[in-house]
Amino acid sequence: MRDVAIIGIGMNKWGELWNSSIRNLIAESALLALDDAGIDKVDSMYIGCMSSGLFTDQEHLGSIGPDYAAMCPVPATRVESACASGGLAVRSAFIEVASGISDIVMAVGVEKMTDVDGAGATFGLATAADQEYEVYNGVTFPGLYSMMATHHMYKHGTTRDQLAMVSVKNHKNGMKNPLAQFRMEVTVDQVKSAVMVADPLTILDCSPITDGSAAVIVCSLDKAKAICKKRLVKIIGSGHASDTIQLAQREDISFLKSTAVAGQIALKMAGKKITDINFAEFHDCFTIAEIMVLEALGFVAKGKGGPATQDGLTAIDGKFPVNASGGLKSKGHPVGATGVAQIVELTKQIRGEADKGRQVKKADIGLAQNMGGSGASSVVHILEGV
Amino acid sequence: MRDVAIIGIGMNKWGELWNSSIRNLIAESALLALDDAGIDKVDSMYIGCMSSGLFTDQEHLGSIGPDYAAMCPVPATRVESACASGGLAVRSAFIEVASGISDIVMAVGVEKMTDVDGAGATFGLATAADQEYEVYNGVTFPGLYSMMATHHMYKHGTTRDQLAMVSVKNHKNGMKNPLAQFRMEVTVDQVKSAVMVADPLTILDCSPITDGSAAVIVCSLDKAKAICKKRLVKIIGSGHASDTIQLAQREDISFLKSTAVAGQIALKMAGKKITDINFAEFHDCFTIAEIMVLEALGFVAKGKGGPATQDGLTAIDGKFPVNASGGLKSKGHPVGATGVAQIVELTKQIRGEADKGRQVKKADIGLAQNMGGSGASSVVHILEGV
Repeated sequence: MRDVAIIGIGMNKWGELWNSSIRNLIAESALLALDDAGIDKVDSMYIGCMSSGLFTDQEHLGSIGPDYAAMCPVPATRVESACASGGLAVRSAFIEVASGISDIVMAVGVEKMTDVDGAGATFGLATAADQEYEVYNGVTFPGLYSMMATHHMYKHGTTRDQLAMVSVKNHKNGMKNPLAQFRMEVTVDQVKSAVMVADPLTILDCSPITDGSAAVIVCSLDKAKAICKKRLVKIIGSGHASDTIQLAQREDISFLKSTAVAGQIALKMAGKKITDINFAEFHDCFTIAEIMVLEALGFVAKGKGGPATQDGLTAIDGKFPVNASGGLKSKGHPVGATGVAQIVELTKQIRGEADKGRQVKKADIGLAQNMGGSGASSVVHILEGV
Repeated sequence: MRDVAIIGIGMNKWGELWNSSIRNLIAESALLALDDAGIDKVDSMYIGCMSSGLFTDQEHLGSIGPDYAAMCPVPATRVESACASGGLAVRSAFIEVASGISDIVMAVGVEKMTDVDGAGATFGLATAADQEYEVYNGVTFPGLYSMMATHHMYKHGTTRDQLAMVSVKNHKNGMKNPLAQFRMEVTVDQVKSAVMVADPLTILDCSPITDGSAAVIVCSLDKAKAICKKRLVKIIGSGHASDTIQLAQREDISFLKSTAVAGQIALKMAGKKITDINFAEFHDCFTIAEIMVLEALGFVAKGKGGPATQDGLTAIDGKFPVNASGGLKSKGHPVGATGVAQIVELTKQIRGEADKGRQVKKADIGLAQNMGGSGASSVVHILEGV
């Protein structure tokens, strides 16, 4: 396996982008990443997208991608694992370069979600859960995470306020991110008293419906040294794991096993301990998720994610900043783009290029955790500046 | 890059499988392939599927796959490039083993197409074409291929009978394949006088709507030598390329450029000339496609695919047998499964395990060509028995 580094990143402004179609979104971030890398072509592309079929009636992004980024006959592969599609695009690009088949590969994450109405978006997202045993019986995604939250509160004593504090923290960070969708501060009381979605989760516990894209260009380390004029960021660990798609089949619905396994694989590949990690981007699709990820990766013990959040561990000026980007909650969650945007954010932080007020102090080794559905698939990456 | 060999293959009986859901189909071929390999687990999976979202309301096959094959937390990635999704699953598995990240990887191809009605299937398939510039203006897939056929006939003098002969040959081969969907012989007259779909293509020029799956297990060559008790089949070449998604943007709609490029890449990696190839499986989604693939890969000169078919070049007892399996036309075309089934067929032929009456005489080096949409993406593999 060859060493792999990141030489280019790109991300558009996320939100309800009525003037952009999915092909524009792909091209926009792809071109920004090429520009950042100072190159005009890659050997191949991976496109992370959850459901361009259900959201935009357009599959075959493996053609749309290179076509609209003006790179035919460069090959492209769309990868999907629900909301972990973006992380998988980065992982696939990493593997292709590591294998030696290609030297320079782009991973683009994209989702165009606002071309369907709210019911259409909820239906599309629900296809990440078990259609036969969960969705047809009436459960939607907030419902699944509300069960996880309720069980976590019952088993570990996690409080309603602690859930809200995840949202408060991430919105505070997102305020400083010009690419974020919802740049506003919220208070614990506002989160708790917002419109109820699925008890105990209000709308301010939930990540939004977003259009957006992000792109990362990875390269063999040798070649990267010649091309890249910025601080080189190596991908030193990559882990990927699955869990049962149904919550009902799991031993403990308050623990994210696929994240735990993917994290262990990534750490082993990186030759690092969890305490070596300086900062992270987590998949906070719902507030409870960030707390569960803290525990699954072993940053805190089982059940201690809530108190750790309350004590400020994960704040931007805390000992272990999480979601300095604003996370899915404030930055937005175009599902297929999220995992790539996490790598864009880690790279910015490691390069020292993050926006004023949200650059973390020590940013040499960062971790990104991206997951699909109710944690039925997880992808973890560890990046290190050289 | 490490050498990669195939150690297990599996495929279910294709057709309208009312008693199977997509998860059953994945598990069925996965378990057959494990059984063929004599192992009970793999390191990871790739699942080629075009549109489980539009056909079955179920995305996130990266969880469904390992879950229903009883392999969690083994990771799985769904890959999609329309009808080339299966070929990409094999290519992704090949790259992962070649990289050294994993030793044993399964590629499963699957599509469950009959849970929607005919209009739903036509709509789902049309998402492989350009929604904004082709489909919204009324073109469906047979319409796109009818334009390609008409132009090929105009430019090269290809005859209506030559198109029909592709169908006649493939149905004759499929008769001998117990896993094929349509096991019946057809004549040139029957093809020509069948229900018209899009002039000049009748329903007997078109591949059918099919439920089915197929699986292949690839392994590092060193480990394969210890595990595999059958003839080892090496993947010696893999190529992948894109073209514009719209026909209107191409220089020549009677030539498959992405197939030509992917073929050249695969041949170069394999260190072979086109004349070294003994037999092949081509993506005959429509009869004209097989003729165009013969030309794009350079087996015959541009415009000579029709006469070569008429002269028997591609017959089972010809100099260069194509689609001994029955091809998409007779075997069926569950879109995401097709590319994997092609590799299953090449492996069977190279092992000498093909059914009586359709084993090709010289089967040491085989080629599989799989494509998406109207040729906007192509994947070519070359396999060699050792």
